[in-house]
Amino acid sequence: MSSTSRPAEAQVHDLATFALADGFHAAATACGLKPSGRLDLGFVWSDTPCSAAGVFTTNRVQAAPVHVCRETLSAAAGRVRGVLYNSGCANAVTGERGLGDARRMRALGATAIGAKPEELFVLSTGVIGKFLDMEKLSRGVEALRAGAALHTAGDAARAILTTDTRPKLAEASIAGGHARIAGFAKGAGMIHPNMATMLAVITTDARIEPARLDRGLRAAVERSFNRISVDGDMSTNDTVLVLASGASGAAVDDAGEPAFTAALTEACGSLARQIARDGEGATRLVELRVTGGASERQAHRVGDAIACSPLVKTAIHGNDPNWGRILAAAGYSGEPIEPDRVRLWLGEGDPLQLLDRGLPLGFDEARASALLRQDPAVVHMDLGLGSASAVVWTCDLSADYVRINADYTT
Amino acid sequence: MSSTSRPAEAQVHDLATFALADGFHAAATACGLKPSGRLDLGFVWSDTPCSAAGVFTTNRVQAAPVHVCRETLSAAAGRVRGVLYNSGCANAVTGERGLGDARRMRALGATAIGAKPEELFVLSTGVIGKFLDMEKLSRGVEALRAGAALHTAGDAARAILTTDTRPKLAEASIAGGHARIAGFAKGAGMIHPNMATMLAVITTDARIEPARLDRGLRAAVERSFNRISVDGDMSTNDTVLVLASGASGAAVDDAGEPAFTAALTEACGSLARQIARDGEGATRLVELRVTGGASERQAHRVGDAIACSPLVKTAIHGNDPNWGRILAAAGYSGEPIEPDRVRLWLGEGDPLQLLDRGLPLGFDEARASALLRQDPAVVHMDLGLGSASAVVWTCDLSADYVRINADYTT
Repeated sequence: MSSTSRPAEAQVHDLATFALADGFHAAATACGLKPSGRLDLGFVWSDTPCSAAGVFTTNRVQAAPVHVCRETLSAAAGRVRGVLYNSGCANAVTGERGLGDARRMRALGATAIGAKPEELFVLSTGVIGKFLDMEKLSRGVEALRAGAALHTAGDAARAILTTDTRPKLAEASIAGGHARIAGFAKGAGMIHPNMATMLAVITTDARIEPARLDRGLRAAVERSFNRISVDGDMSTNDTVLVLASGASGAAVDDAGEPAFTAALTEACGSLARQIARDGEGATRLVELRVTGGASERQAHRVGDAIACSPLVKTAIHGNDPNWGRILAAAGYSGEPIEPDRVRLWLGEGDPLQLLDRGLPLGFDEARASALLRQDPAVVHMDLGLGSASAVVWTCDLSADYVRINADYTT
Repeated sequence: MSSTSRPAEAQVHDLATFALADGFHAAATACGLKPSGRLDLGFVWSDTPCSAAGVFTTNRVQAAPVHVCRETLSAAAGRVRGVLYNSGCANAVTGERGLGDARRMRALGATAIGAKPEELFVLSTGVIGKFLDMEKLSRGVEALRAGAALHTAGDAARAILTTDTRPKLAEASIAGGHARIAGFAKGAGMIHPNMATMLAVITTDARIEPARLDRGLRAAVERSFNRISVDGDMSTNDTVLVLASGASGAAVDDAGEPAFTAALTEACGSLARQIARDGEGATRLVELRVTGGASERQAHRVGDAIACSPLVKTAIHGNDPNWGRILAAAGYSGEPIEPDRVRLWLGEGDPLQLLDRGLPLGFDEARASALLRQDPAVVHMDLGLGSASAVVWTCDLSADYVRINADYTT
């Protein structure tokens, strides 16, 4: 992230120094759900009730833990104690038995920390259509409880990963440094995930009521996770949870809400970009800036169409300034763009213009290629139709993407 | 194509024996638009005026030849003489100059066969955003005219290709064998092409008025080319043209129209499947049969979502019966499917059921894998919501797709 115009990143680079917000504990263990023996069970919890909010997949197929999280949220958004999560098995498309398993998982976690079942969230990620091995899970929760587990926030962040090549961590400070937001995420599917699960667990020690937290989370997600994923194009398990312990004592009131939402957006944006950057097989982050839209929705949809185009993503992978593919993707976005108003640049700071009002400019191909090689590769399209804009993030598409996905379950 | 349930294929396997419908001439040459020296200029024409119909891309960015084809169609749908086409350059995003070039190309072709400019179609395919080399093109048309060209229909079918690995040919007989439909196509982008151009030139020696031909073509395209390509997801150049010479003397009247449309649909369906089968890097055709839809549109949209999913396509490439990805794609199709009504099978004839009313069945993974290895790989989803159905074709997604597309222009 060498950008000058991008805000100071909330990204945390060091697993060892990563810390959750005050008031939260972390634990992680390997209970055998992942055949590799890697960490596959994690727990983030508070000793006291937290405000909580969640945003969930819009897929018609929703995994059992998503149902259970919704139950928790409606039962106890003001007194949630934590989130127990596993990787290695998504507990999706598992019917009534899966729902029962998710509720049992929740009860196991709740017992472990002396909470009521409806005060806990559960998350699962991994292979779809397999039942959770409840015996392994149960032994795993015992291990977390017995203190035989790892206890840093970094361990907890690692236990949620599947095909990710690295953990995703973010933090932001609020209330003049008196309170913090800190969270982690997983997700490494092709960006604009078709169904690669995206999960995020965010903690804050601010004191904030559930309704305000919900409002802030929805606003933050709209500008972050929803900018790497098309609405309706989400996996069966996608979930973003935020828990507020209040341990800092710093209260978020009407006056403080905008700053809190901004900080939460910063943290979510960082996690979202880290997910995009770690797209399966990806070699770089791609930042698509669409300006000059008649509406933000239009700019977002045009950016989405470009970000979803395998032809654009392969061209960027090949450092090929194939602006024709970019323009054509905008052309089929469903938005009534006017090709003869479109301008296109690569790079930032001193960008290189490729297209002016729909017509190709002569440009230095070597320089264009070098700009695409940057991380992030920045593509800026101005639609010339208005003043609305949107930024969408994706990654390049490499042959490794295919290799990773051609035999994920077998 | 080993299917038993699929209709006898209109596919023609032999370039040498392929023939256009009666009344049409063919010519092809290499005029240098392709650096490789391969055939890049083709011409199909009739000595007498033909009925004509065309279906064009819905992309907001439309190439110059698409504009010019529309002009021809509105000026002379009842007396079109032929179609001149080139590969190696798409003449797209070329502004006024490109439009002038396309009109000049049309005039060159018209002069060569003694027609008026408005009696000719032109098609271009290849790299976007480059101007046509009119000097090479002009010399090429001279070569076609001078008889220095190749003159079989197979040559004409080869001259339209770009990244295709093989020509696409189809024919069908009508009027009890007294008349024929014969055509060729190009297209080898990722299926559900984001912008990989799909072109088809279809000839018939039936006698049919333009309005009837137009009606038949639209119906045929809806069940063929539109089943490998999402509406609004088309390239800047996509075009399907049909020319009817009337040379057989067999007239298509009200009574004969259904049979004509069926034959045209058969030919278009074959070309569409050949395009899907030749998707860049593809190793097999994938046939998605969606039944039990509340409407055909719903079945089509669910099939489209599955066909567009890179995760589904990579899983099929890896012979991995990852039905979770298939179900999740249906779940984000935008259609209100009911996961607990969905059933899923692989294969045809004696299919293997993977999912029953939303729940995974135990199944023989080796057999499932073997069924995916078939060409075509058949996936059948029943939505359990009604009695409408749709078939959508796609291909698997291999690492070669990325290699082909990462450096197409450079």
